[in-house]
Amino acid sequence: MSETSEFDRLLTQLPLWLETSRKRAAEGKVASYIPELSKMPQSALGIAVLDANGRTASAGDCGIPFTMQSISKVFTLILALMDNGEAAVFDKVGMEPTGDNFNSMLKLELVRPGIPFNPLINAGAIAVSSLIAGADSEEKSSRILSFFRKLAGNPSLELDEDVYRSEAATANLNRSMAYLLKDNGVLEGGVDEVLDVYFRHCSIKVACADIARMALVLAFDGADPLTGESLIPRRYVQIAKTFMITCGMYNASGEFAIQVGLPAKSGVSGGILTLVPGRYGIGVVGPALNRKGNSIAGVHLMETLSREFDWSMF
Amino acid sequence: MSETSEFDRLLTQLPLWLETSRKRAAEGKVASYIPELSKMPQSALGIAVLDANGRTASAGDCGIPFTMQSISKVFTLILALMDNGEAAVFDKVGMEPTGDNFNSMLKLELVRPGIPFNPLINAGAIAVSSLIAGADSEEKSSRILSFFRKLAGNPSLELDEDVYRSEAATANLNRSMAYLLKDNGVLEGGVDEVLDVYFRHCSIKVACADIARMALVLAFDGADPLTGESLIPRRYVQIAKTFMITCGMYNASGEFAIQVGLPAKSGVSGGILTLVPGRYGIGVVGPALNRKGNSIAGVHLMETLSREFDWSMF
Amino acid sequence: MSETSEFDRLLTQLPLWLETSRKRAAEGKVASYIPELSKMPQSALGIAVLDANGRTASAGDCGIPFTMQSISKVFTLILALMDNGEAAVFDKVGMEPTGDNFNSMLKLELVRPGIPFNPLINAGAIAVSSLIAGADSEEKSSRILSFFRKLAGNPSLELDEDVYRSEAATANLNRSMAYLLKDNGVLEGGVDEVLDVYFRHCSIKVACADIARMALVLAFDGADPLTGESLIPRRYVQIAKTFMITCGMYNASGEFAIQVGLPAKSGVSGGILTLVPGRYGIGVVGPALNRKGNSIAGVHLMETLSREFDWSMF
Amino acid sequence: MSETSEFDRLLTQLPLWLETSRKRAAEGKVASYIPELSKMPQSALGIAVLDANGRTASAGDCGIPFTMQSISKVFTLILALMDNGEAAVFDKVGMEPTGDNFNSMLKLELVRPGIPFNPLINAGAIAVSSLIAGADSEEKSSRILSFFRKLAGNPSLELDEDVYRSEAATANLNRSMAYLLKDNGVLEGGVDEVLDVYFRHCSIKVACADIARMALVLAFDGADPLTGESLIPRRYVQIAKTFMITCGMYNASGEFAIQVGLPAKSGVSGGILTLVPGRYGIGVVGPALNRKGNSIAGVHLMETLSREFDWSMF
Repeated sequence: MSETSEFDRLLTQLPLWLETSRKRAAEGKVASYIPELSKMPQSALGIAVLDANGRTASAGDCGIPFTMQSISKVFTLILALMDNGEAAVFDKVGMEPTGDNFNSMLKLELVRPGIPFNPLINAGAIAVSSLIAGADSEEKSSRILSFFRKLAGNPSLELDEDVYRSEAATANLNRSMAYLLKDNGVLEGGVDEVLDVYFRHCSIKVACADIARMALVLAFDGADPLTGESLIPRRYVQIAKTFMITCGMYNASGEFAIQVGLPAKSGVSGGILTLVPGRYGIGVVGPALNRKGNSIAGVHLMETLSREFDWSMF
Repeated sequence: MSETSEFDRLLTQLPLWLETSRKRAAEGKVASYIPELSKMPQSALGIAVLDANGRTASAGDCGIPFTMQSISKVFTLILALMDNGEAAVFDKVGMEPTGDNFNSMLKLELVRPGIPFNPLINAGAIAVSSLIAGADSEEKSSRILSFFRKLAGNPSLELDEDVYRSEAATANLNRSMAYLLKDNGVLEGGVDEVLDVYFRHCSIKVACADIARMALVLAFDGADPLTGESLIPRRYVQIAKTFMITCGMYNASGEFAIQVGLPAKSGVSGGILTLVPGRYGIGVVGPALNRKGNSIAGVHLMETLSREFDWSMF
Repeated sequence: MSETSEFDRLLTQLPLWLETSRKRAAEGKVASYIPELSKMPQSALGIAVLDANGRTASAGDCGIPFTMQSISKVFTLILALMDNGEAAVFDKVGMEPTGDNFNSMLKLELVRPGIPFNPLINAGAIAVSSLIAGADSEEKSSRILSFFRKLAGNPSLELDEDVYRSEAATANLNRSMAYLLKDNGVLEGGVDEVLDVYFRHCSIKVACADIARMALVLAFDGADPLTGESLIPRRYVQIAKTFMITCGMYNASGEFAIQVGLPAKSGVSGGILTLVPGRYGIGVVGPALNRKGNSIAGVHLMETLSREFDWSMF
Repeated sequence: MSETSEFDRLLTQLPLWLETSRKRAAEGKVASYIPELSKMPQSALGIAVLDANGRTASAGDCGIPFTMQSISKVFTLILALMDNGEAAVFDKVGMEPTGDNFNSMLKLELVRPGIPFNPLINAGAIAVSSLIAGADSEEKSSRILSFFRKLAGNPSLELDEDVYRSEAATANLNRSMAYLLKDNGVLEGGVDEVLDVYFRHCSIKVACADIARMALVLAFDGADPLTGESLIPRRYVQIAKTFMITCGMYNASGEFAIQVGLPAKSGVSGGILTLVPGRYGIGVVGPALNRKGNSIAGVHLMETLSREFDWSMF
């Protein structure tokens, strides 16, 4: 299928496929571990697909705002690589998928010498947050926000202050992990400061269009096709996309690779960032989660799209 | 770089790069868990790269014979899929990488309802062996050997009887796993029969050229480009390649994906099967293993090639 | 309270306390992992308390036969100590409680150099079975049976052949463990032979009076007070009683030590062997098990007795 | 042997046995996880044995001061029981030994619903600290110190301020555990406050004579035989002694029970509190630790004493 006719079919079919997938939301559960997240509507589902010419195919509730949560980890990893280089980053986090669920402490303990398995699990992302350049948590957070705004082409991206405060107030498990990392010599700087940076980037508020634009930059190897501006060195995009395949969907990453076959990263707010290399950036939101912590309707929709358009990289 | 000039450069440079990588073999260790394997030469390193026109670039000790060991698991998975379909296979094995080393029993126990994490770890491959069609272990083994001969375009492929007997005689750990699988209701048929099938396909003797040809079929989505014959349905090749990215190199799969970025499967005899999608099938042998159980010189050589030719899929 | 008045009170109260404890059986579950065991009556509860003068206080269903199951492990440990001495036995099994449930393979794998935590978990008891002197499994089994008959003062003790066959036929998990032990170099002899010895001693059929008499020998440091015969060296009784406190009741051993405070060993058939040092041997049977695998009514009855008579060693 | 002649033999032999055991110190390692502890002399070994008449047999370096560390956990457990009763305490900590080493987080995570295995591991002792009555950490700490002074018959017991500050400054692992407990709903109050109470009672400075006196109170079921004063309800002493047998010596508790057979609790400063029920309270100090974290020379000395005087409870 030519790219044009594919996009035309996408424009026509997307609303129908979305409504079919939306029905799956009833089987999922909106995250409730922080009070703010539980306010998201169970049955919502939205998607935006953006191509290199700036055309967007969107459907459903693509306008509802959500916080990036774990999706942000892809881009803090990239910023940490840009700030420190590969060697310094992989001195503090590994490259392996875990098979355990997202907040497991089991793995952290058993691996020697105690570094987190990869940068996309919580422990790894906290370690990465400590590597962002900046004099203090404020400067680090401000640099992250600027970077995200540039990638999204949206200078008005902001924190959701309520979610941020909610995260920080209910963070015992992340705090526990951070102290374990500190004990293992993995964390630079103070635990409170690092966690503040981490909670802030998880709380950045976006819509599907923002996520699709950020994904588009990855789909085009770091150069924003809409502006021509080179935002990320290609090697770091490669690293990010590889981790998105092997560890991007928590402990359902293997299944997503088999059934969808695209680099992706999900967040507990129900967002999914994914991309078709060289073609599209995609943002999805669907707050009802499956048992592995991924948007149940969003995953279903991506399975449909990948099958219909033969999008798997493999 | 055009494909032609790339192949020309490959022909010229391959011997040089191979000799550089060969030096790493001194840091590795030849597998000794079965006596037969320990006879492989520590410093050997060979490679064969085969393209769709039947041209081969080879270097080093590419003529030495070795047993397929875990490399065979890719193709028994494919045969089990062809015999049973996706649903029946994934009823018995999962799709997730584990992060644990190749013979861990930890994961088997903790996952519910007790099925192996994926078809490329030992426990999963034993479960897959039990799914091969055939009246008894002899017929199953004979079907596997025929399938492998066809894929390798080599009707004289045979078992290494010494390795097979050595495997069967020192198989306490695999036997332990198989009984655990049996207890979990994962294994069809008798434990002894299943293990016999498993030991036999691990013991099939090949050289780099055989592995390169088998890989070439995967690189061309299941159709042998040298004969035009369609040997594997494309979807099953897709599944196999995805697992090779997420779980093909034991608990160094994530690192191999980051540093090489190609579907691959290694074996404890020092073999690596890998491929450049749509272009090359590659067979490597280097018996000295790193701590994760992969050929230390072979991995180094593949890192060089991927970097020099920008082969990563990501 | 004088010993005489205590025994008189026991004779009077035991039937009442037993009926109160019997009600708890409704909350438990009869073991069903082998078909034969599942035939035991859910609501049964029996006890026999034997003193050094040969007086017995008994109540409830103390006449129903049951197989020793894990209770036998105390006495095969003792026989292995008598056959080999302390050093040889503790070369193959450890001395530590595990906190894991009775058939966990987790612990076996994580401990270095791979020996079972203690002789009362399945893995440890299988290792102990391999240490019993004898030319083959038949002679070993025959020596065990003779030893048990002597301890019970009952020359007619026999195997329950149906249970034995049922055990042997459904033994995948134990077989898995045994092969793991074999791989770790812990097992002497062939796996099948060792398991045969193990299944046989687990299947010896007893009644509460037999268990009480065996316990009485332990309560009097190895000398049967009814015959004056010295049957076990005192040091080995000491070792056995210590393990019974730290590991005798699966992963509820700690709780039993706190709430009852007596050396004890339970079996999955619902039997409990326990003793008051220097005073009584006690046999209990109650097939309905709690979640930890111990007789739910039997444990309740022992809690009552220990509290009423202040029997805790601590 | 009569008690008198035993004590006479103890007075004569203790210095000889101590010097034999002292040689083992060379194989051990002084704890260095906090800088203050590492200042203890490697070859020191001291002991004090106190009987109900106030006679003391002592030898070696029994005068050197050391901090109680984990020994304090026995008495904060008792105080928490006195403050809250059994039900409230065992709602927050379990009763089972773990087999894991003292600072393992593995067990904490796998057990449901996430309560620590027992009150003598770090996680459990932190939970217990949160149960001590008092308006704030200062009052709680002050109540603990008063209780310890009374038990030791030594009103001048004080904190070692340097050790306390050193503990608090290097507490990342304990802090990590405390936040995990907080996340699991196990901890009452703020994490910082609870840890402050915990670090303070670990840092109370004692000598062997103090420990012997505290142990004597346990040996006499809670009533100080030197004053006749009843300090602890007997049931709580029983609970404490039971835990000391099953979990008092980290993951060498099982071995200590087999080889010594007395209730005991060790600390990372090299102290051991142990007792012969109804007869002696014993305090030992020997800073060089074995791999399990217990005083290597101290354990050897207790093995000698238990063997020579047949002190095992079993």
